[in-house]
Amino acid sequence: MGFCFNAQFVGHYYSTFDSNRADLAGLYRDNSMLTFQSAQELGAAAIAQKLVSLPFQKVKHQPVTTEAQPTPGGGIVILVTGQLLVDDEQNPLSYSQAFQLSKDQAGNWYVFNDIFTLV
Amino acid sequence: MGFCFNAQFVGHYYSTFDSNRADLAGLYRDNSMLTFQSAQELGAAAIAQKLVSLPFQKVKHQPVTTEAQPTPGGGIVILVTGQLLVDDEQNPLSYSQAFQLSKDQAGNWYVFNDIFTLV
Repeated sequence: MGFCFNAQFVGHYYSTFDSNRADLAGLYRDNSMLTFQSAQELGAAAIAQKLVSLPFQKVKHQPVTTEAQPTPGGGIVILVTGQLLVDDEQNPLSYSQAFQLSKDQAGNWYVFNDIFTLV
Repeated sequence: MGFCFNAQFVGHYYSTFDSNRADLAGLYRDNSMLTFQSAQELGAAAIAQKLVSLPFQKVKHQPVTTEAQPTPGGGIVILVTGQLLVDDEQNPLSYSQAFQLSKDQAGNWYVFNDIFTLV
């Protein structure tokens, strides 16, 4: 089941990020963790606040590679590498992002671990 | 405890990789997974064989960023971005690598998930 799901998740995540970052809050839970360029946030509210406050108006992610594996606890770990364009910049920035997805008590997938790094 | 441990793991992993790849087998177990440039391997023996058979004699990894978070099952997820030099090449290649570390039944840490991608 993993790979269809992951492709969907990655596409959904970045399309949400690029259209309305505030909606990303629904993909996290209170125990979710974000490391964004070494800054650490805990919980959906703090993570969404961090993402919404990033200092650009427009962003367009272009994931290039996506690889995934099942994890010991029944989750999924995903490594994405790609490029992104911010505002009216012409030069894309390269990034790497690792996710671990888990299921909440209702059986819905959410982002437990999120590590984002510009490279 | 996480961050000292992770720094040690990453340093140990790449120094082993760069000095004697065959010794990496000890860092994996039978249920470990490797995705190396989209090729998938399962288990310490197959993973070590894959790494030993990579077509270069010398390699030098230079990790640039290392970020880590605890995972739901008591493990650690790590995202490394860096560069590597192969044989006598002068131009480094950029790579990203995601690890998930778990403890085996004896309480020793090992690599459960390993996803390596040149970028």
